[in-house]
Amino acid sequence: MQGDPTPRYALHYWPVMFRGQFVRATLAHAGAAWDEADIDAVAQAMSEDPQDQPVPFMGPPVLTDRQAGVMLAQMPAILDYLAHVHGLMPGDPARDALTRKVVADANDVLMEMTRHNGAQMWTTEAWADYVPRLSRWMGIFDETGRRHGLTEGGGTLLGTEAHGLADLVTHVLWGTMTDTLPALRPLFERTAPALAALSDRVGALPEQAALHARSVEAWGEAWCGGQIEASLRAAIAAQATG
Amino acid sequence: MQGDPTPRYALHYWPVMFRGQFVRATLAHAGAAWDEADIDAVAQAMSEDPQDQPVPFMGPPVLTDRQAGVMLAQMPAILDYLAHVHGLMPGDPARDALTRKVVADANDVLMEMTRHNGAQMWTTEAWADYVPRLSRWMGIFDETGRRHGLTEGGGTLLGTEAHGLADLVTHVLWGTMTDTLPALRPLFERTAPALAALSDRVGALPEQAALHARSVEAWGEAWCGGQIEASLRAAIAAQATG
Repeated sequence: MQGDPTPRYALHYWPVMFRGQFVRATLAHAGAAWDEADIDAVAQAMSEDPQDQPVPFMGPPVLTDRQAGVMLAQMPAILDYLAHVHGLMPGDPARDALTRKVVADANDVLMEMTRHNGAQMWTTEAWADYVPRLSRWMGIFDETGRRHGLTEGGGTLLGTEAHGLADLVTHVLWGTMTDTLPALRPLFERTAPALAALSDRVGALPEQAALHARSVEAWGEAWCGGQIEASLRAAIAAQATG
Repeated sequence: MQGDPTPRYALHYWPVMFRGQFVRATLAHAGAAWDEADIDAVAQAMSEDPQDQPVPFMGPPVLTDRQAGVMLAQMPAILDYLAHVHGLMPGDPARDALTRKVVADANDVLMEMTRHNGAQMWTTEAWADYVPRLSRWMGIFDETGRRHGLTEGGGTLLGTEAHGLADLVTHVLWGTMTDTLPALRPLFERTAPALAALSDRVGALPEQAALHARSVEAWGEAWCGGQIEASLRAAIAAQATG
């Protein structure tokens, strides 16, 4: 990648981890080079009429594959494309489909944890009501891993020897969330121990550790950012001390 | 399919069109036979612990492929799987990825139109604020079709000669919405004329027309159902007369 003035990929996303981190982690794992548009360019692309956008889209992330001439929006579609190009799908219809289910589940958790991208702010009461459902999501991911051999050391969907898209998504969802919101880590370890261990192993891979360090340096310990994160942190803190 | 006592597929979904209709339309288009679990069985499956569920999941739709021994949740993952099995994907990485983007966009529209699965009810004011964004979504779909030849009669992503997953999803999203909520049809025709014409063409296919007739007979003209649909209808009516 060094010496190549124009990387293969370009990413349009906000300067925060959240949905963009799934794309970044996949690119990093694939050893692919990418550059990122600055915040003004992201806002500009998003505000254009669909007729004037390079790919008609509502919100970032947007990925450009300069080599293939492909532009895509929607995190699940982008991950699927990168997994195809870089060989990160299991490679049979049933497990490919389950990988896509894991991605869709992750997308739903992001939506719920931000109360639909900030449509409502968290309150102490709403958060307390939500925690059992968050715990159920953790259990769903954990059981998905167990069902496919994760705890017997021969994971065929999660925890595969060559880490695939489902592993990356699992780590970016739960690892990034509980790193940036450490008050959630005990719930994670208690509810989904196999998952927590897997997330730690993926996070310790050199590319992922380097990405995380760069991200924290650039954007701090923010997860989704904005007022919704402030309300989430306040609600978590209130519950912890309440 | 006649004479086969056990159909290949089973669908767990509520007795309403909404997300389930995407799966049904794809099965119908593929000429695949399926049966549907009753509402008690859906509620029962959803309430079990993840450890006891046949596939760990949060909410329906859930599809079982009895022939392949596959069980899946998440509408986008189910559609992708069916498209793979029944040859409804374009078949090259770029257009497959754009098909997945269309599916993810449709899923986002469903989420927005129900204010995150009914997390908030519609008010006249919230609906009036939302209409420009709904119109933008229609424009995004319309432009996606145009960008790939839809209006020149040689659609390569939408409006392909052999209708594919992107066509089915486009029809089920916009056609079902504007059939059951006819007050939205003028906006649809004005904002996205190429899309409206495509949706009508797909809806006129014998399998889709038959599915629609059966669905209306079984569940009435409900779209997403419940209190959220009541609030949506009230807000649309208030705007039309306001």
